[in-house]
Amino acid sequence: MQLHLCTWMEVETYLQNSDAIIIPIGSTEQHGPTGLIGTDAICAEKVAMGVGENLKAIVAPTINVGMALHHTAFTGTISLRPTTLILYLQDYVTSLAKAGFRKFFFINGHGGNIATLKAAFSQIYDHLDSLNLTNSDQVKCTIANWFMSREVYQLAKKLYGDEEGSHATPSEVALTQFVYPDLIKNAPLSKEVGKGHSIYGARNFRECYPDGRMGSNPALATPEHGQQFYELAVKELTESYLEFIS
Amino acid sequence: MQLHLCTWMEVETYLQNSDAIIIPIGSTEQHGPTGLIGTDAICAEKVAMGVGENLKAIVAPTINVGMALHHTAFTGTISLRPTTLILYLQDYVTSLAKAGFRKFFFINGHGGNIATLKAAFSQIYDHLDSLNLTNSDQVKCTIANWFMSREVYQLAKKLYGDEEGSHATPSEVALTQFVYPDLIKNAPLSKEVGKGHSIYGARNFRECYPDGRMGSNPALATPEHGQQFYELAVKELTESYLEFIS
Amino acid sequence: MQLHLCTWMEVETYLQNSDAIIIPIGSTEQHGPTGLIGTDAICAEKVAMGVGENLKAIVAPTINVGMALHHTAFTGTISLRPTTLILYLQDYVTSLAKAGFRKFFFINGHGGNIATLKAAFSQIYDHLDSLNLTNSDQVKCTIANWFMSREVYQLAKKLYGDEEGSHATPSEVALTQFVYPDLIKNAPLSKEVGKGHSIYGARNFRECYPDGRMGSNPALATPEHGQQFYELAVKELTESYLEFIS
Amino acid sequence: MQLHLCTWMEVETYLQNSDAIIIPIGSTEQHGPTGLIGTDAICAEKVAMGVGENLKAIVAPTINVGMALHHTAFTGTISLRPTTLILYLQDYVTSLAKAGFRKFFFINGHGGNIATLKAAFSQIYDHLDSLNLTNSDQVKCTIANWFMSREVYQLAKKLYGDEEGSHATPSEVALTQFVYPDLIKNAPLSKEVGKGHSIYGARNFRECYPDGRMGSNPALATPEHGQQFYELAVKELTESYLEFIS
Amino acid sequence: MQLHLCTWMEVETYLQNSDAIIIPIGSTEQHGPTGLIGTDAICAEKVAMGVGENLKAIVAPTINVGMALHHTAFTGTISLRPTTLILYLQDYVTSLAKAGFRKFFFINGHGGNIATLKAAFSQIYDHLDSLNLTNSDQVKCTIANWFMSREVYQLAKKLYGDEEGSHATPSEVALTQFVYPDLIKNAPLSKEVGKGHSIYGARNFRECYPDGRMGSNPALATPEHGQQFYELAVKELTESYLEFIS
Amino acid sequence: MQLHLCTWMEVETYLQNSDAIIIPIGSTEQHGPTGLIGTDAICAEKVAMGVGENLKAIVAPTINVGMALHHTAFTGTISLRPTTLILYLQDYVTSLAKAGFRKFFFINGHGGNIATLKAAFSQIYDHLDSLNLTNSDQVKCTIANWFMSREVYQLAKKLYGDEEGSHATPSEVALTQFVYPDLIKNAPLSKEVGKGHSIYGARNFRECYPDGRMGSNPALATPEHGQQFYELAVKELTESYLEFIS
Repeated sequence: MQLHLCTWMEVETYLQNSDAIIIPIGSTEQHGPTGLIGTDAICAEKVAMGVGENLKAIVAPTINVGMALHHTAFTGTISLRPTTLILYLQDYVTSLAKAGFRKFFFINGHGGNIATLKAAFSQIYDHLDSLNLTNSDQVKCTIANWFMSREVYQLAKKLYGDEEGSHATPSEVALTQFVYPDLIKNAPLSKEVGKGHSIYGARNFRECYPDGRMGSNPALATPEHGQQFYELAVKELTESYLEFIS
Repeated sequence: MQLHLCTWMEVETYLQNSDAIIIPIGSTEQHGPTGLIGTDAICAEKVAMGVGENLKAIVAPTINVGMALHHTAFTGTISLRPTTLILYLQDYVTSLAKAGFRKFFFINGHGGNIATLKAAFSQIYDHLDSLNLTNSDQVKCTIANWFMSREVYQLAKKLYGDEEGSHATPSEVALTQFVYPDLIKNAPLSKEVGKGHSIYGARNFRECYPDGRMGSNPALATPEHGQQFYELAVKELTESYLEFIS
Repeated sequence: MQLHLCTWMEVETYLQNSDAIIIPIGSTEQHGPTGLIGTDAICAEKVAMGVGENLKAIVAPTINVGMALHHTAFTGTISLRPTTLILYLQDYVTSLAKAGFRKFFFINGHGGNIATLKAAFSQIYDHLDSLNLTNSDQVKCTIANWFMSREVYQLAKKLYGDEEGSHATPSEVALTQFVYPDLIKNAPLSKEVGKGHSIYGARNFRECYPDGRMGSNPALATPEHGQQFYELAVKELTESYLEFIS
Repeated sequence: MQLHLCTWMEVETYLQNSDAIIIPIGSTEQHGPTGLIGTDAICAEKVAMGVGENLKAIVAPTINVGMALHHTAFTGTISLRPTTLILYLQDYVTSLAKAGFRKFFFINGHGGNIATLKAAFSQIYDHLDSLNLTNSDQVKCTIANWFMSREVYQLAKKLYGDEEGSHATPSEVALTQFVYPDLIKNAPLSKEVGKGHSIYGARNFRECYPDGRMGSNPALATPEHGQQFYELAVKELTESYLEFIS
Repeated sequence: MQLHLCTWMEVETYLQNSDAIIIPIGSTEQHGPTGLIGTDAICAEKVAMGVGENLKAIVAPTINVGMALHHTAFTGTISLRPTTLILYLQDYVTSLAKAGFRKFFFINGHGGNIATLKAAFSQIYDHLDSLNLTNSDQVKCTIANWFMSREVYQLAKKLYGDEEGSHATPSEVALTQFVYPDLIKNAPLSKEVGKGHSIYGARNFRECYPDGRMGSNPALATPEHGQQFYELAVKELTESYLEFIS
Repeated sequence: MQLHLCTWMEVETYLQNSDAIIIPIGSTEQHGPTGLIGTDAICAEKVAMGVGENLKAIVAPTINVGMALHHTAFTGTISLRPTTLILYLQDYVTSLAKAGFRKFFFINGHGGNIATLKAAFSQIYDHLDSLNLTNSDQVKCTIANWFMSREVYQLAKKLYGDEEGSHATPSEVALTQFVYPDLIKNAPLSKEVGKGHSIYGARNFRECYPDGRMGSNPALATPEHGQQFYELAVKELTESYLEFIS
């Protein structure tokens, strides 16, 4: 049940039973020589739809551009500055809160979003309070990072060991292959891959990680792995959602 | 060719031949008792993909939340404030401009976005100039409103006459039915429909347009009409794009 | 009846009978080799005062700097960025709304202001709503572009045909000549004049329109024409105002 | 020589001899039962025009709305918030600085503007520096408060003694009477007048100063006094300007 | 009694008897060859603690970075832009106002903060009003500049005459020597010292004042003088505080 | 070596050998019935000074107000909104970067700052890049949370087990007791203490954690423990700093 595929009257009916909503958030950023630029949004949206179907929960429109400034030295990356993303999230959640939603379950596909998301949550609580919104003290936002789910993490370690890396990982690439089996990209991967460097500015990032991968070997990914990751993520995040709204 | 389904290296290759990109922008807002909340984003994205396929032009991620403050008295609407949307567009275009893009062709599905988009363009030119970007004077942004294409407009008038209205129109509903034939909604439509009122704030809007429609009869829509609108829009906007980049 | 020439007690008395106010908005920007930099503000103010006198309506202080970023490659132009202008208008209208005004009739002299003004209106309605202002749902803003009045437009076409152009037009120059008959400027006009180019950034604009004119021949202007334009504009905008406040 | 009455080419010629400009700034705020709401803008503009004529210096468009938040509990006051006014001034000066102006001589009519103006100057220097503007280190802004000129002050003390007060003063009212002799307002003034209270928020201000006057007796004003104030102010500020640009 | 050394329950108890708080504000900026970069914060904090002890008034955490853009061409200076400082002060005071504080007594150590502080006060009153805070009309902010206290000023003139200057003054250096007698710096001072120049941008400031001093001779300072200044400042500001809260 | 106790010339000398600086950041927020409101700033500053002394590294002025919106339902808490804190940090670091600093080592005392700090870092890299600062790609910021140092954490677990909790912890209280042995507060602690609740808005936080503690028993703290924590933290963060600047 996706918000953008509902009518406003259907949403009004939904609110009689639930004040919770799932919001997928990804990013538009380089994912190495073979990963899709939209990987983080694709994964977050796919998992969010799975959780939404399980629970008949509404899934809001995917936030497909996030905080990816450190990837902007690679062509094709689009990023918001953190202050812009905070204002964006504030407007986004405020619209829904005025309509009656109180619990916002963000399913996130990009590690780089986490800090700004958390900062935004603090600002949102304060903002809604200043609007004298009814029951503004019941507003709750949370982040569920599909790629950090316990079982997802364990499977990635089991399948790929150290070659999972931390960006353009085989696990996320696998999930996109499961969603788009016809879009499996082939490109040569250098044997050497940057790893272990801290993340600073965009140009520094590219020096450390010349092809965009962070310690990963996405060539290990398969659509079948992707399906497994998908199913584990949906299972775990379904439980997280139930716990969150209880 | 959608940006989010490319790798960064594919985008780099693309830039050797073209510095133009298509950006679909819609809205997440009520569309009457039977229209999908995502109507404007769905239509803009569908038409953008058609134009992109025709011309092998890159289509950027759909901006699915826009300026819809006047619809926020209806459940399910999500809107940015104009200043937020301007900052969002500035960051979005700046990312792409730094990578080498110079021509930004926005395919728009929502009349309410137009003013803020135009304001943003002015701010973007000035901002890129202040960044000392190479050839910043060659940056060009334009809006192509699919629903205002000449032939689309004529067909709508021919099929629906005055019942086309100006929001939750049968033409846009038809296009969503073409995209999602399984999601044709049924809900009773009152005989009376608000029409002709100027648009002011959200509460005033709802008083004038109690079920969200503006003078329209979306019950006239069919998926077949939708296909016609789609094809006309793609044809016309393909021409507009070619003219824009020439 | 101009606000700045009233005492606060006179305004309080006025509010007992009317909650409407006229706000002239212009721009400070190049108007070709012979047009005054203040053309847009001069025209908007003059017409606003005429309408105000007709109806005993209050005319607020003229907003003499607007959105003219595309003219900033010409000396003497002063422009706000759109986000600044939106904040300016928000503060301006909020002050008046807190005092009891509800209907804001902007008489505009500059096409480049329109998008930002419309964006500002949306933001203003939302802002006043968030302040819990009494009857904030009755706040209404509208734009009346004197130069787009039907009869003004027709007269310009009749007098100047294609030489009316779209910036530094003989009609607006004529109106300033009517206001300042001693300030009719003489400067040679090239035979060739830029026309038909889309408007992008400031440097691009100057390349397309080297002397600042857009397809116009301001040498055709006369003070007598200016008086005619003035009278037609006042007549039409008087009607628009009455319709707006009814 | 007023900027808005010049053509852009005339301004270009002017810049060959001078990079200085006069900017009048006033306010739109209550001035007691008999003072004009536009008093501060009227006075600043009149004096600025006098100085400009003396020296053939360009006078920019009057900034007629300033920082008057403490007067907003009185009907008819329009105020910007300080952050908005800073952004406004930054955009205003940046436009002129890009065209080549370097010395900005603000003639100010309102004490409440001073703090925000000074804060804005600091921000402007920093901003222009960050733009890598040529000779940005030569940008200079200064405030000349006509009402604080030595001789103006002395005359006010001589004519009115303690009844000069500090807002809605007979001296500023006199100057407006000199400019608009047909607009001398009559309204009863209470014998008691608020005086000596510190200025805090708008509602507190109105409690302390119930009719808007601050210790003043504007009934003492005459147009003849106004002319004297005008002449003294022009004389002194002419000298200040010459010193500033030297 | 310093806020940061209290528990929240102690502050709650305090509020039963007083709604006033002292806020020291300084700056982090060059103070010539021998002055400490933290001079303004050190002095403001020391005096604030003295006043607080006298009156058992709470002293809030020292704002140690202020508006010092004009000093930023000297290494070690840290400055906020005025708009940032205004937002900072707004958040700072809003937090305390929500808890019940109504009277904010800023003890200031830096002339460059004054304009921005005053601008911030206006914005704060307006902001708290818009929050519908209880008794927001009783919020009062004031600035007490220890270095402008009458007796402090007189002593400085008596001890140093013209060599007091206006930045890196012997009086403020003396006060820091009183606080940190082990940190008396020795560095050669040129005989010539910049004086009398107006303050514009940072680079211009450094040209006018090459070693950072403004007409001062800090070599005259002694810790004993510092103690005298401290005692006079505490005495006078104690009186100012009592008058402010009465 | 604290920046505020240096002269600007000393800082210039320092920069010849090092471009790194330590910045302590804390918070001003409730710390339960017995914890000091300034706990986080006190701890961060103390540890920073220890690290600075070890390495002769400069320590910048302590940022004593941070992101503590969730504590604002308790009297005495002062918080910035995340967007304000980001702008504050941007101005703070920009000042230092313009002077030549490139490595910013934040020693942090408050978990609630982490998200906003990380978001700010991204914004700072991007901002400095847009300023065309020399070697802006070498700017590096990092956070060292003293309370999350491995050995500190282990000691806390050993000394307090589960009673360490996560706010108003005995370890941080102990460190403040080491710094201020005369300020050990006594107040009754309820046996029951809130624990395990997620953090949302301020009012919700207070409902979950009625006296401000989060699962902690600060009564276990002693100044001797504090000294141990201090020494471990300094030792570990000294190593972290060396690794960071290498």
